[in-house]
Amino acid sequence: MKLRVGSSERGYDIILERGALGRLGEYLALDRRALVVTDEGVPKQYVRTVLAQLPDGALFTVPQGEGAKSFAVLERVCGELLARKFSRCDLLLALGGGVVGDLTGFAAACYLRGIDYAGIPTTTLSQIDSSVGGKTAINLNGVKNCVGVFHPPCCVIADGDTLATLPERHFANGLAEAVKAGLIADPALFELLEQEDARERIDEIIARSLAVKKRVVEADETERGPRRILNFGHTIGHGVESVYGLAGGKPGGLLHGEAVAVGMLPMIENPALRERVRAVFRRLGLDVDMSYDADAVYEVMTRDKKTHGAAITLAIVPELGACELREVPIEALRDYLKR
Amino acid sequence: MKLRVGSSERGYDIILERGALGRLGEYLALDRRALVVTDEGVPKQYVRTVLAQLPDGALFTVPQGEGAKSFAVLERVCGELLARKFSRCDLLLALGGGVVGDLTGFAAACYLRGIDYAGIPTTTLSQIDSSVGGKTAINLNGVKNCVGVFHPPCCVIADGDTLATLPERHFANGLAEAVKAGLIADPALFELLEQEDARERIDEIIARSLAVKKRVVEADETERGPRRILNFGHTIGHGVESVYGLAGGKPGGLLHGEAVAVGMLPMIENPALRERVRAVFRRLGLDVDMSYDADAVYEVMTRDKKTHGAAITLAIVPELGACELREVPIEALRDYLKR
Repeated sequence: MKLRVGSSERGYDIILERGALGRLGEYLALDRRALVVTDEGVPKQYVRTVLAQLPDGALFTVPQGEGAKSFAVLERVCGELLARKFSRCDLLLALGGGVVGDLTGFAAACYLRGIDYAGIPTTTLSQIDSSVGGKTAINLNGVKNCVGVFHPPCCVIADGDTLATLPERHFANGLAEAVKAGLIADPALFELLEQEDARERIDEIIARSLAVKKRVVEADETERGPRRILNFGHTIGHGVESVYGLAGGKPGGLLHGEAVAVGMLPMIENPALRERVRAVFRRLGLDVDMSYDADAVYEVMTRDKKTHGAAITLAIVPELGACELREVPIEALRDYLKR
Repeated sequence: MKLRVGSSERGYDIILERGALGRLGEYLALDRRALVVTDEGVPKQYVRTVLAQLPDGALFTVPQGEGAKSFAVLERVCGELLARKFSRCDLLLALGGGVVGDLTGFAAACYLRGIDYAGIPTTTLSQIDSSVGGKTAINLNGVKNCVGVFHPPCCVIADGDTLATLPERHFANGLAEAVKAGLIADPALFELLEQEDARERIDEIIARSLAVKKRVVEADETERGPRRILNFGHTIGHGVESVYGLAGGKPGGLLHGEAVAVGMLPMIENPALRERVRAVFRRLGLDVDMSYDADAVYEVMTRDKKTHGAAITLAIVPELGACELREVPIEALRDYLKR
């Protein structure tokens, strides 16, 4: 299926098709220079499949993990484009998960002030989440995504077959974003996750999750208004991720989706719904039974904010399928963290 | 006077007022965090005047010259914003010439995916040229402006009084862009430069030059179409600058405007007009009587292009006040260089 994201003058298609990885030319003009950016963790067969279709293609491999979202690696990607004499008409392809997508999108946004890039997400998380919205980013001094721009891809090609090689824990990691989409805007999606086998129904899960995100993003492209409901689970989630997450460099730590799952629970007002959500996380294989140090998470969450009397906007789910933004004094976060 | 540049959903004002440097609050909301980015060459009294008006202001000084337009310095500016806990509502101020403006604009474009910045250009070149258009940039591996984004300022404040401290050669440097504006679109401006004293009439010269650029930029914000007439003089100019320019690190080399002046002459078709332009450059103090090595310049100009049968679009002035785009095989540049 094809989903059109038309939130700006430059809309783009998300292709959700099994086998699409081997048919890139159906969706993208390939008769130009192309640089495939990927990371060391992406299975080599996908890299070969993509390169084989490019008449003038090259490969640039970055280290696996959040460390690649840095100024240093961004400079290397831009330097590679320059060395290969890429013009404004050429193409970047981001093959991999969210890290590769965020980094490559940013490079495409600023090389010659903007060239085309296409996303080819190969994880549940990136197929569900990071392929919509046009956000690109790198990290700086331990703060995630604090440098970047909005630059929509020319096309996103999500091939469900690439999820077959994904380890179970990483498969589940992305489903946290599907639970989020169901909770804030699609009760039927939530019930599907509650009752059906996620591997079997993954195409439908991804399509419904993307549809939710698309509706929200199109209503608010630069994230100053209602788009912030997509932050549901992420306010505390990012704090938990900083303290306990792999992305924060903790060996054996939480993945992004796991941290967001932990962060969603305190933001659900109805206690019965909260228990349903906890049960869904367990059946999907998302471990949310950790106990975290609320003070440590609070400290990380507030270190980047103005300290005096600042307010913070929380995305709260009062009932299944609804989400509202609530502005609270930053200190009120302590209560949520202790729920 | 005030000039509104309204080429995108986010238009902005250019303020051209003597003494405006001391009245920033009339044009800008200053009741927020503000970081003033400047370079070592900007007179200290201007820095003090600006800082004195900022209730929550700080200063970040970068090295003078093109070297500051680098990933390394961009990272330092973003790191400073992060360390000072700047939010999306805070403000960057670019106080200085084009280097400071390009770098600061880029930092503002990508910190938190975009915060406000205001330009306070203090040179003729930046008041005339780099304050309009929303282009931001850094250099990479010796190639000027090859990494950046389009990010319009929230406001540009050009105070003619700041030009008083500018050395004669730097004053003249910016006037090359005024000659360009006159040649491509404003015969009266060209005649003014031909007949009047530029120091005396600088306010009018800047205003008319900006008006030309504004008209062109508004018609084509992302530079895929007619905006390219603004490249008049720059195609060869950039090549000359790379080989003989200060920006290329040559001690005693050409300034940007001087290189552009050299680059304009071969692109003027009418020989009589070309002689008039040469005379104007001389009376303004722009030395265009250098002889350059056409082969060396050609090599630099083409090293970033596809080599086989590539075309290049030249901006040509057939008669005073007119400019047309002409696509030629890249090899044809050799003939223009030898004119």
